Amino acid sequence: MESATFSGASNSFTLRLALSNRPGTLARVTQVIGEVGANIGAIDIVRVEQDTLTRDITVYAARNDMSEQIVQRLDAMEGVRVVHFSDRTFLLHLHGKIEVRSKMQIRTRDELSMAYTPGVARVCRAIAEDPRRVFGLTIKGTTVAVVTDGTAVLGLGDIGPEAALPVMEGKAQLFKEFGDVNAFPICLATKDVDAIVETVKRLAPGFGGINLEDIAAPRCFEIERRLKEELDIPVFHDDQHGTAVVTTAALINALKVVGKAPRDLKVVMMGVGAAGTAVTRMLMDLGVENIIGFDRKGALHTGRDDLNDEKRRYAEATNPDGVRGTLKEVMQGADVFIGLSVPGVIDEEDLRHMAEAPIVFAMANPDPEIAPERAWPYVAVMATGRSDYPNQINNVLCFPGIFKGALDCRARDINEPMKMAAARAIAGTIDERSLAPGYIIPSVFDQRVAPAVAEAVHAAAVESGVARKTN
Amino acid sequence: MESATFSGASNSFTLRLALSNRPGTLARVTQVIGEVGANIGAIDIVRVEQDTLTRDITVYAARNDMSEQIVQRLDAMEGVRVVHFSDRTFLLHLHGKIEVRSKMQIRTRDELSMAYTPGVARVCRAIAEDPRRVFGLTIKGTTVAVVTDGTAVLGLGDIGPEAALPVMEGKAQLFKEFGDVNAFPICLATKDVDAIVETVKRLAPGFGGINLEDIAAPRCFEIERRLKEELDIPVFHDDQHGTAVVTTAALINALKVVGKAPRDLKVVMMGVGAAGTAVTRMLMDLGVENIIGFDRKGALHTGRDDLNDEKRRYAEATNPDGVRGTLKEVMQGADVFIGLSVPGVIDEEDLRHMAEAPIVFAMANPDPEIAPERAWPYVAVMATGRSDYPNQINNVLCFPGIFKGALDCRARDINEPMKMAAARAIAGTIDERSLAPGYIIPSVFDQRVAPAVAEAVHAAAVESGVARKTN
Repeated sequence: MESATFSGASNSFTLRLALSNRPGTLARVTQVIGEVGANIGAIDIVRVEQDTLTRDITVYAARNDMSEQIVQRLDAMEGVRVVHFSDRTFLLHLHGKIEVRSKMQIRTRDELSMAYTPGVARVCRAIAEDPRRVFGLTIKGTTVAVVTDGTAVLGLGDIGPEAALPVMEGKAQLFKEFGDVNAFPICLATKDVDAIVETVKRLAPGFGGINLEDIAAPRCFEIERRLKEELDIPVFHDDQHGTAVVTTAALINALKVVGKAPRDLKVVMMGVGAAGTAVTRMLMDLGVENIIGFDRKGALHTGRDDLNDEKRRYAEATNPDGVRGTLKEVMQGADVFIGLSVPGVIDEEDLRHMAEAPIVFAMANPDPEIAPERAWPYVAVMATGRSDYPNQINNVLCFPGIFKGALDCRARDINEPMKMAAARAIAGTIDERSLAPGYIIPSVFDQRVAPAVAEAVHAAAVESGVARKTN
Repeated sequence: MESATFSGASNSFTLRLALSNRPGTLARVTQVIGEVGANIGAIDIVRVEQDTLTRDITVYAARNDMSEQIVQRLDAMEGVRVVHFSDRTFLLHLHGKIEVRSKMQIRTRDELSMAYTPGVARVCRAIAEDPRRVFGLTIKGTTVAVVTDGTAVLGLGDIGPEAALPVMEGKAQLFKEFGDVNAFPICLATKDVDAIVETVKRLAPGFGGINLEDIAAPRCFEIERRLKEELDIPVFHDDQHGTAVVTTAALINALKVVGKAPRDLKVVMMGVGAAGTAVTRMLMDLGVENIIGFDRKGALHTGRDDLNDEKRRYAEATNPDGVRGTLKEVMQGADVFIGLSVPGVIDEEDLRHMAEAPIVFAMANPDPEIAPERAWPYVAVMATGRSDYPNQINNVLCFPGIFKGALDCRARDINEPMKMAAARAIAGTIDERSLAPGYIIPSVFDQRVAPAVAEAVHAAAVESGVARKTN
């Protein structure tokens, strides 16, 4: 379990303890927490009574099951009583993480008469007379629907639309925090392609863009394709294209670090689902010619007779030398390994046999294809999807800025030039002198990223003719 | 035009004028504005130059066309130049009136890891294991969809989903401001009953309630009925039931003022569309036995052969004496006139022939069935839908509190007992000593109303067995 070394806030909790007021009690408590393997954050005093001290102790656990162990061991100790246990992640989710707010106060009749009847009627009429005005006079021009059917949520699979809602709310938070884009979760109680397409088309009038999220392959492909054809607002499946954009951004900078060119690379792509396929397509746009995809059975080549339609098309478009074999075999001499699969599929031996200055993007979540600690000795550049290692390849770097740029110019579409502009903008926020093996991709908290992406995407939209507002 | 006397903020604008710096110039400007019939709000100085004074003048116009007249006349004056004209209502609508905000900052990795991956996965799993937890751990428990097809928007008719959006945003603002309920507009690009029902059912997982809005009759009846049957969250067509609740509240207090009982009343109901039918039903629940409905052709009675299904059912359920005749004829001896129709359908003569202490609710919008100034000499209690007269019967008094109460107890439905509880709660916010002919209904800004309604609705939901959370 790579994640056993990860002591994060996401598994943090606060314990309220009643401690007998004798020297050494707190020390015994902290010792137990340490023995279980968790870290202590804050220790606060809540109340002092004659014989008892009540304290709040915030604990950062490596794994979720640690909290139970700690509570049991503390409760068994003499002079210690666990008064209350609060899971900080759950507390933060109470009643949801987003809210819909009025941008103005409505405290007087004047304000009410402008925001609502009778004043609003003039605004409605203006839009009815010139439908283009809906973009400027309503939330449509700044608002994205985050649409899911809950079938491929994080690593959790098909957990349904209700259980997917916390992720969609998180996405909406990130849209706002990083891109100043309003986003609202739409969790659909259907998995039927026709029904999803129909439903999204019906609710599109109020939105300036559609972000498809966590919809399982292969349905996600048809849903996205049909919606892109039938709607006049951008449709973007973040799991595919967001991942492609940030991976491409990371590779652009990694290649600068190792001094290689896209056309000279041999790229091994482990995992050819929705994300892997989109990454492959975008790397080919970047100029990479030799990409070999893998599923569990080995390299995808046109000679295999066990491929479904998607994989067959993938094999036809890639692997120009018709390479066959296992991952271990084909890793020999590879310049780049990109993993969007599962933990443990490669090891140190694989890395030792790669070409000179190998690049490894191990993006399986939460546990990468190989732990960075194990990979570092053998690779030139290492990136993962995780926040607790250098070079985190995270979609947060792209989707807020991409939609911001698309909305700002009322784009009809998010097309290939706009995605490539976003990737180059993300890569470009790190200047050449700052580039380093451990710094090929900016931090998700780098406030320069979203505006740079928005500006580049806006310009690419105007240039490629999908912008409806060009000033 | 009754509304010619109404000088409101909804038709207000700000003029930036460059005035020659000679005595009397401002006086001539204000004179012109007064002559056109508008009022001046603020006058500010923007800039003083040698020969020129730049001023911002806020003007409240009675009608929308006044702004054009004023600008033309001012521009024609010597020593006056209109630099800029800004319509305050349109300014306020720029980029929409609501926004989706994160309830927390996401500025650190700890915060990100709790709101989004990896922490959010534990919350998703918790909901997948126990679906009831979606109410407490997401926005579902506090959020309502405001759903329209844009077919009956204000008095504007079928203006489409885009042009309806400003009204739905206004509704969402009022939900938040008055009830602390999150509401999000869903403007549907379909008018088909099956399609609307299907779509709302599909997006229901993310919402705790559905507020149907501005959907034309008779489709609104079937849509509401089917959604109430098929969804396990409350569905409420505000145009029907909101109007019924506030009208009933007003009548409860008006009857106290005149000292009459529901069962003794003769009520004339002009306008038997969606709202009129719902008001009638609720007044019958209150104990009113003799209600006579009217369409343009006269009283609804079972002897008429020109009635559609809705009106036939209406005639069967009401008018126990089988009264026939014109509105003018039947108004004789009536105790209550309720208008949800068009301006000008009754006059002073009609009021003179009503029973002693007549009650008139003239709720046509924006111009009532009879102007209050004309009615006052002849009636005991007069109410309208307008904010610029006493006794405004406004749905804002009910829907925020009703949904707040329903959401708080996770109600499956908003049923008749809950609606009646809301009406009594609204009426009850005015104590008996404060009741007066000009004060039968609280102000929309009375902050006691929504909490009182929420509490009463919550209790009625628990009592009637539709609450899923009873503590």
